[in-house]
Amino acid sequence: MADQKHLEEFMEFLSIPSVSALPDHKDDMRRAAAWLADRMKRAGIDGVEIIETKGHPVVFGRKEAPVANAPTVLIYGHYDTQPADPLNEWVSEPFKPEIRDGKIYARGSSDDKGGVFPAILAAEEVIGRGELTVNLEFLFEGEEEIGSPNLKELLIARKEDFKSDLVVSVDGGMYSVDTPSLTVGCRGLAAVQIEVTGPRTDIHSGQGGNIANPIQALAQILAGMKGPDGTILIEGFYEDVAEPSPMEKEAMATVPFDEEAVKDQAGVPALFGEPGYSPVERIWVRPTLDPNGIWGGFQGEGIKTIIPSKASCKITCRLVPHQEPDKICKLIEEHVKRNAPTGVTVTVKSFPGSSRPYVVPGDHPVLPVMTKVLRELYGKDPVVNRLGGTLPIARAFLDILGTYLVFFAMSSPDSGAHGPNEFFRVEEFDRLRTGLPKLWAELGKALK
Amino acid sequence: MADQKHLEEFMEFLSIPSVSALPDHKDDMRRAAAWLADRMKRAGIDGVEIIETKGHPVVFGRKEAPVANAPTVLIYGHYDTQPADPLNEWVSEPFKPEIRDGKIYARGSSDDKGGVFPAILAAEEVIGRGELTVNLEFLFEGEEEIGSPNLKELLIARKEDFKSDLVVSVDGGMYSVDTPSLTVGCRGLAAVQIEVTGPRTDIHSGQGGNIANPIQALAQILAGMKGPDGTILIEGFYEDVAEPSPMEKEAMATVPFDEEAVKDQAGVPALFGEPGYSPVERIWVRPTLDPNGIWGGFQGEGIKTIIPSKASCKITCRLVPHQEPDKICKLIEEHVKRNAPTGVTVTVKSFPGSSRPYVVPGDHPVLPVMTKVLRELYGKDPVVNRLGGTLPIARAFLDILGTYLVFFAMSSPDSGAHGPNEFFRVEEFDRLRTGLPKLWAELGKALK
Repeated sequence: MADQKHLEEFMEFLSIPSVSALPDHKDDMRRAAAWLADRMKRAGIDGVEIIETKGHPVVFGRKEAPVANAPTVLIYGHYDTQPADPLNEWVSEPFKPEIRDGKIYARGSSDDKGGVFPAILAAEEVIGRGELTVNLEFLFEGEEEIGSPNLKELLIARKEDFKSDLVVSVDGGMYSVDTPSLTVGCRGLAAVQIEVTGPRTDIHSGQGGNIANPIQALAQILAGMKGPDGTILIEGFYEDVAEPSPMEKEAMATVPFDEEAVKDQAGVPALFGEPGYSPVERIWVRPTLDPNGIWGGFQGEGIKTIIPSKASCKITCRLVPHQEPDKICKLIEEHVKRNAPTGVTVTVKSFPGSSRPYVVPGDHPVLPVMTKVLRELYGKDPVVNRLGGTLPIARAFLDILGTYLVFFAMSSPDSGAHGPNEFFRVEEFDRLRTGLPKLWAELGKALK
Repeated sequence: MADQKHLEEFMEFLSIPSVSALPDHKDDMRRAAAWLADRMKRAGIDGVEIIETKGHPVVFGRKEAPVANAPTVLIYGHYDTQPADPLNEWVSEPFKPEIRDGKIYARGSSDDKGGVFPAILAAEEVIGRGELTVNLEFLFEGEEEIGSPNLKELLIARKEDFKSDLVVSVDGGMYSVDTPSLTVGCRGLAAVQIEVTGPRTDIHSGQGGNIANPIQALAQILAGMKGPDGTILIEGFYEDVAEPSPMEKEAMATVPFDEEAVKDQAGVPALFGEPGYSPVERIWVRPTLDPNGIWGGFQGEGIKTIIPSKASCKITCRLVPHQEPDKICKLIEEHVKRNAPTGVTVTVKSFPGSSRPYVVPGDHPVLPVMTKVLRELYGKDPVVNRLGGTLPIARAFLDILGTYLVFFAMSSPDSGAHGPNEFFRVEEFDRLRTGLPKLWAELGKALK
C-alpha cells in the first residue's frame, strides 16, 4: 500500500496548477519545475537541472548504475497539465487534490503527474538499496499538453546528454484498470484554427439578408469538411493512410472492446464513427478530425439581434501512419480556401506542436520484457494496444536520438484525463512505483 | 443648435448602463427608469408613473392639450440598451458618453435614448409655450432589446389608459443622415436557441473516431438550415411569405440604395443574400435566418485536445408578411429534430419576445402629414421605407389598441446600433427635438 507520506507529497505536487496552455500560469509552471527538481535531488538523482527552453522549462537528471557496462534507460514524462475548465463540473476543486474511494482526484493526477512522481519514488528506492543495474535518465517536460513545441530543438541541441538505449514513457495508459496493455503506437496530431470575418463590427441583424453571417459561413465550412456519416471530405486527407493488413485486421478483431462500457462512460446514446471500420480500428488505424472549440457573437442570456463580426473554431486531427501533419494542415487550408463562402474572409492558422504518428515494430526485443513485467503486475498477459491519442515526443526520440520509446504508464481510460474530475487510482500509483524497479532490473539483463 | 445643458443631461442619461438582457444590470434599469420619470415630471408632464411588469418597468406619463376635442398621440420609445460587448472594439467607453466630430458616442445613444430624451425636451418646450394642440401620452419601455416580453400584457391590462389616435415611435431611423424616410413597416422576429449535447463531459479527443462531436453536429445542423447561396432550407419557411406585387417591385426598384456605401459601412468585400432578389427586396420583403452567437468547447489560447460535451447557438429570423413567429419556431424545431445527427441529443428552445411583421397601409391619412414635416426638416421628400429590423410593439399596438404606429426617429443606419461605437449625431438630436413640435402641430389639425 502507498506510504501516507508519499501520497501527501503527491498531493502537494498536484496542488500546483501547472497549466501550460494558459499564460497566467507561467509562474506556476516554474514552481512545479522547481518542486520536481528539488524532489529528484532528495531521491538521490544526480545532475538535476532545470533546462530553459523558449517556453516552459524541462527538468532533467541522471543516475549512473554502480555496475560496469550498464545500459541506459531514459524515463520520459511531463509535469504540465491541461486547463481545468469547465470548472463547474468538478466535484472537488481541480488543484485541491482529494482522495475518494481509492481515487486521487485532481487535474494532472492521471496525466501525467501520476506518471512522474511514482517514477521518482521508484528511483529513490532502488538507489537506496544500491541495486540499480541500468543507468537512469529523467526527462520531464512542461509542454506536452501544448504539443511539445520546444522539445525537439532541445533533443537536437543536447543529443549527447540524452543518449540512451531505450526511452520509457510514464505518460500513456493501460487498456483498463485490470487489463494491462503493451502500447506499440499512438496517433499523430495536427491542429489548426479557422477564423471567419464578416462585417467590420457586429451589426444589427435587421441588415440580415444582404450581409453574409460568419457563424453560418463557419458552420458551412465545418459541415463541408466531414460528411454526416463521419467521413472526412477534405481532398487528399486519406491519401497517405496505411490500410491495415488482413493480419492486422484479424488481430484488432480479437482486442477486447466493451462498446456498452465506452458508451456508458462517455454518456452517449450511441457510438458514432467512420463507416466500414470497427470501433477499435477507428481509434487505432483511422485518422480523425474534431472541432475542439467554437465561438462567435453573443453568448450571454437571452437574445442579441446581431450579425457578428467574427466566428472562430479550433480543430485537431489525430493522424495515423503515414500521414504527415504539415501536409494535413496544408490540405485543410487548401480545402477551406477552395470552399470559402461568399462575403466573408477566412484565415486558417496551423498551430505549432504537431506530431507524426508513431509505431514500435512488433519484433522489438524489449517487448517480451515488458510482457513479462506486466504479467507479473496484473496476473495476466497484456493486450497489444495503440493509443488513440498522441505522445508528440515519441516520434521525435526515434528521429533525433535513434531510440525507441515504450510506454509504461498505469492510468486507465476512465480517468477523465483532459476533462473534469480527472483521477488516478492509489492502486495505479502503487503499481507504477513497484513496477518500475522490476522493469529496470529486467532491462538491465535484456539490454546488456 | 443643441443647448449645452440639454446635451449634458443626455449624457447623464446615457451613462446609466441600462442593459436589459443582462441580469447584473437590473438595478441600472431601475435607475434609468427613475431618472426618466423624474425628468418627465420636470418637463411638465402629468401623471408620471413607473409601471411594474414581470420584467423591467415601463415609464408612462401624459399631458392634456389646453384645447377642446384634441386628438391623442402616444409617443413610444425605450430606455433599455443592447449589451455593449465586444468592449475592446469601443474607442471610448460605452457608458462614458463622449462627443467627437458632432457625434455623441455611447451605447444607447442612437437606439433609443436619442429618441426618448429629445421627445421629452420637445414636450417641455411646447408645454412651456402653452401651444399643445394634441393630448400627449408617453410610453417608454425597458424591454425592447429583449423583444418586449411583458408589454403586450400591459397594453391589454391598461388598454383604456393607452387609448390614442396614433402612436408615434421615436425608435427606428431614417434612410440616411440626409435622406428622410417614411417608414411604413418592419420585419417580425422569431428567436430560438439550439443546444447539442454529446459526451457527458468534455473528453480526450484521443477517443475521436467513435464519439460524435457536438460542434460538428451543430455545424451540420446550421449548414442544413441554409444553402450556400443564402436560401433558407427549412421546410415550409417561405410558405406564408407574401410575394411583392409587380407594382411594389417597381416601387422598390426606385429606392435609392448605395451598394458601395453599405459594403464600406459594414466593411465586407461583397453583399450576400438570397438569389433572385435585389438588396432592397431582401431587406424589405424577404425573411432571414441568422445565427447571432455560437459557443462550445475550448475558447482559450493554444490547443486543447477535447471532444466537448456541448455546443450551442442562438438564431433569430426576421419575418415578413404573413409569416407567424410561433409557426416559424415550430418549423425550425421540426426541421432540427428531423435532421438531428447521430450520437448526439439536440434541443431547440424558443425565446419569448417574438413579433409579427407589421405594415402601415399606404393610404393611411397620417402619411401626408409626415411627408410634409419631413420635407420641412430635410429640405426634400422622404423615401418610402421599411425597416429590416423589428419593432416588436408596432404590431401589438394595432392588435390590442387598434391604433396605427408611425415612426418619427432620426438615427441613421451608420449609427452602429447593436455594435461597438454606437453614436447619435448632435444634428439628429436637434432635428428630433425641433421636429416633434412641428409634427404635433400638424397632427393637431389632421387628426381632428
